[in-house]
Amino acid sequence: MPSERPLVDAAGSAVEIVEVGPRDGLQNERTLVSTAAKIAYIEALVAAGARRIEATSFVHPKRVPQMADAEEVMAGVPRGDGVRYIGLVVNERGLDRALAAGVDEVNVVVVATETFSQRNQGMSVLEGVRSFGVISARARSAGLRVTATVGASFGCPFEGEVDPAAVGALVRSCASAGADEIALADTIGVGVPGDVARLVSEVRAVTDLPLRFHFHNTRNTGYANALTAVALGASALDSSTGGIGGCPFAPAATGNIATEDLAYALRRSGIATGLDLAALVSAATLIGGELGIVLPALLGRAGDFPAGLSPERRL
Amino acid sequence: MPSERPLVDAAGSAVEIVEVGPRDGLQNERTLVSTAAKIAYIEALVAAGARRIEATSFVHPKRVPQMADAEEVMAGVPRGDGVRYIGLVVNERGLDRALAAGVDEVNVVVVATETFSQRNQGMSVLEGVRSFGVISARARSAGLRVTATVGASFGCPFEGEVDPAAVGALVRSCASAGADEIALADTIGVGVPGDVARLVSEVRAVTDLPLRFHFHNTRNTGYANALTAVALGASALDSSTGGIGGCPFAPAATGNIATEDLAYALRRSGIATGLDLAALVSAATLIGGELGIVLPALLGRAGDFPAGLSPERRL
Repeated sequence: MPSERPLVDAAGSAVEIVEVGPRDGLQNERTLVSTAAKIAYIEALVAAGARRIEATSFVHPKRVPQMADAEEVMAGVPRGDGVRYIGLVVNERGLDRALAAGVDEVNVVVVATETFSQRNQGMSVLEGVRSFGVISARARSAGLRVTATVGASFGCPFEGEVDPAAVGALVRSCASAGADEIALADTIGVGVPGDVARLVSEVRAVTDLPLRFHFHNTRNTGYANALTAVALGASALDSSTGGIGGCPFAPAATGNIATEDLAYALRRSGIATGLDLAALVSAATLIGGELGIVLPALLGRAGDFPAGLSPERRL
Repeated sequence: MPSERPLVDAAGSAVEIVEVGPRDGLQNERTLVSTAAKIAYIEALVAAGARRIEATSFVHPKRVPQMADAEEVMAGVPRGDGVRYIGLVVNERGLDRALAAGVDEVNVVVVATETFSQRNQGMSVLEGVRSFGVISARARSAGLRVTATVGASFGCPFEGEVDPAAVGALVRSCASAGADEIALADTIGVGVPGDVARLVSEVRAVTDLPLRFHFHNTRNTGYANALTAVALGASALDSSTGGIGGCPFAPAATGNIATEDLAYALRRSGIATGLDLAALVSAATLIGGELGIVLPALLGRAGDFPAGLSPERRL
């Protein structure tokens, strides 16, 4: 039973961080970033140890102008070193583009509630699952791994509470339709650790697929949720360097959890991520400068502990 | 064994929030706030349901100018409704003032490391314990409850790592010297949930006194730590409305955890606090306006869930 597995006992393990700054981070920022700056950002992420990066999304450029250069970004990213690039895809046209651009994996979002699904995807939840099945079958036949991300798993900006059992049923459908990984997204940042536990329980009742989580720190619960997910066996966590981004279709959904702050908490918890904290802060500073924003991430301001990043260590 | 008690199983319980905005919050803000504004802030806190408030500290006004009006604040705070006011005290002169001003409780800080104790308190750790014993005996004979707060329990800005066993030994000394409550402070905001579990284990090996925690969100781990502490049996948590404050003697120690964000996470976890979230946001807005700062707290920006505070609910 997941709730018997405590948050505090995860030491000695490892978790995979999926860097989503170039996609979910940038897509919610108003300042358009040049293709060259995006590629430099991704190069900095790779230098910091990121090995799984959601690099872009293949959506209509009028819908998400920041992602209009998806092909150019993918053509310029550094290859090798075991780095895998994920492309977000919402329909078959997007999949065609993603395949042509040479992504390593595909991420497809389905949404847990009817209203949000209609507003974000332009289709019902059931139509979303069917669409996922079509995309998944084609991507897998092309040799790519496919993730089903369930948006609004923890709450909906339009319908409010979301029944964990409904999320479980949707996960079961996605697993049957050919997902290689399930990702549960707290799109509007309302969840708490108990919600994570309930959802893990629901998902584990229907599938053994690898489980990934996507948290926003909208109400300061994102890091507690992330640590709880790791303790309950999640294999991967999404985060964005600097804590940039959100979702332009979800009101007030500001900020992914920040990769450097998450990596700090995990390292201090004895959980390996393979990431270099100082290099992550450099990558965050780089993209923060491009965007001209004060980053929500805190490690870059406060400094590492115990280490040379901290101002008091420089005295 | 504390580590067997999971974060996610605390539903149905309650925890006491100690509002420290008027003391730890304000003392680290550069803008001096008028006595009238402090009293209005405390009135707003009481209206929001706060029943245990660290109202001020009785230290030398040259050392902490923001607290120079301790007597005037205590003379003006609303009495009744079961509200208890705590005064921070560092020496006997401070205790004399606190007793004369009519505080309901006394909080005395001892520090876990020699360097920080010398710099912050002007005495060794052992001298700190002896001083605590003297203050505690006098306060208790006057009928007041006394808390021993162990500063830098999770890490020291000068010495780095702090041995949990040393914190345990210090707690044992404070318990012997007459503490009614033990508070463990992450003064510089470096801790993670596993540290909370280790410290709870050390403390529980030496005393059954009520256990309170004081977290800063300096590196985005404060809320995870707070929820873990509640799950492991802490009876009280410190926080400041708006997330204002820190410690002027600890470099880069910015921001207590915010009362409204903590209360949100606890309410969503099924843990009662007796606090009204909308009223907390109002109190935070009030003091944020006095200070002229952007508050670190997020609930006031994002809105409650699911409820009428959220912008999308106002459409």
